[in-house]
Amino acid sequence: MLIVAYEGTNYCGWQVQPNGRTIEGVLNEKLTELLGEPITVVGASRTDSGVHSLGNVAVFDTEARIAAEKISYALNQRLPEDIVVQGSKETAPNFHPRRCNSVKTYEYRILNRKFPLPMCRRDTYFYYRPLSVEKMQRAAEYLVGEHDFKSFCAPATSAVTTVRTIYALTVEKEGDLLTIRVSGSGFLYNMVRIIAGTLIQVGSGAKEPEEVEGILKACDRNAAGPTAPAHGLTMIGIKYDFCM
Amino acid sequence: MLIVAYEGTNYCGWQVQPNGRTIEGVLNEKLTELLGEPITVVGASRTDSGVHSLGNVAVFDTEARIAAEKISYALNQRLPEDIVVQGSKETAPNFHPRRCNSVKTYEYRILNRKFPLPMCRRDTYFYYRPLSVEKMQRAAEYLVGEHDFKSFCAPATSAVTTVRTIYALTVEKEGDLLTIRVSGSGFLYNMVRIIAGTLIQVGSGAKEPEEVEGILKACDRNAAGPTAPAHGLTMIGIKYDFCM
Repeated sequence: MLIVAYEGTNYCGWQVQPNGRTIEGVLNEKLTELLGEPITVVGASRTDSGVHSLGNVAVFDTEARIAAEKISYALNQRLPEDIVVQGSKETAPNFHPRRCNSVKTYEYRILNRKFPLPMCRRDTYFYYRPLSVEKMQRAAEYLVGEHDFKSFCAPATSAVTTVRTIYALTVEKEGDLLTIRVSGSGFLYNMVRIIAGTLIQVGSGAKEPEEVEGILKACDRNAAGPTAPAHGLTMIGIKYDFCM
Repeated sequence: MLIVAYEGTNYCGWQVQPNGRTIEGVLNEKLTELLGEPITVVGASRTDSGVHSLGNVAVFDTEARIAAEKISYALNQRLPEDIVVQGSKETAPNFHPRRCNSVKTYEYRILNRKFPLPMCRRDTYFYYRPLSVEKMQRAAEYLVGEHDFKSFCAPATSAVTTVRTIYALTVEKEGDLLTIRVSGSGFLYNMVRIIAGTLIQVGSGAKEPEEVEGILKACDRNAAGPTAPAHGLTMIGIKYDFCM
């Protein structure tokens, strides 16, 4: 199992694609080089183009006789500087990073001030108009728990059910930086970014916090706010209940 | 007067050079375009290649009839995304950003953990071995006040005197991020980076905090630690006593 941090700016997301460089593609290539056999990783969160990670999880099978703990160091020597493995260890053979129960945590960062800051531009969405954190916090409360999140899911989903559970959803401000942090058992396609886009609408006054209840009930993507830009989103980490 | 934030990664520092793109050069070019007359800015801190800024100061003369406060917005439209003006206002004609008394503040950021983090790599120096913040704090105390900082100055200096005053020098740790923050009336060439390099030696155990007293007295660049890499350094801001 690999814990994988990356800056998503220069990648077409996690998943291997016919055209374009992906995190999964680079990991497969460098692991294949390192271990001398064809390697295909299975990732936990198939992040979109431009989304970052501090702790995505990937697993793979290998016949190579190398201590699992050493793979992180050897692999980092080969990886580009925008992908850094944070650790590696052996897992149970039945462990699947998407099928085993887990708690996934994401953060959406918003820089809310008069002028953008160059150093923040890659991983923080710049938003000029003042945002009410208090209103965003009230709106967030409606989303915590088990709900049908169909309104917060891109129409292109292939999910069997749109019911998901959010364990925690917080909005915090530190200086000019606003952080939306969400933990859940799993997320629908674009769900975190649509939640962020909706909370931004609430924070700016375009929607009232109480409207979020109706947005959930509508089960209609058009009821929610826009999909916030990918570069504000970071996959923070994943905790597994078992199979480890 | 412009307050200028930038990411220094893709620039050969502040000062105009015959070869290579500089912050000053881009500001001159874009201001000349905007105001329709040749503009040459004078900067407060001539930061090195790779050094970043949140609040460097630049001034220029113009005959153009545009409200000073509006220049920031108009200029940002033309600037690349790694340079963002944070504000503009008129100053007294006798104001010179390097000759007027000021307090300059810099931060040197160190990521002190097992593996680098991709998102921090441009503005934070990654250092693997554990650093003792407490030792670095004790070492820092010797540098506060008026001293001859010849040991902390690159030999190439053209400074008339190497005596400078440090008003505050703190070392703080938040998670894995260590921040050295220094305020002074002015700094010699590479002084903040040599202070950072010396404090890192102390933190890692290569030098004892008490040795810093002797390093200062030696008035010899070879007595101090190495010049820490440019990309960890950020010019935070400048406060002027008068002339404003």
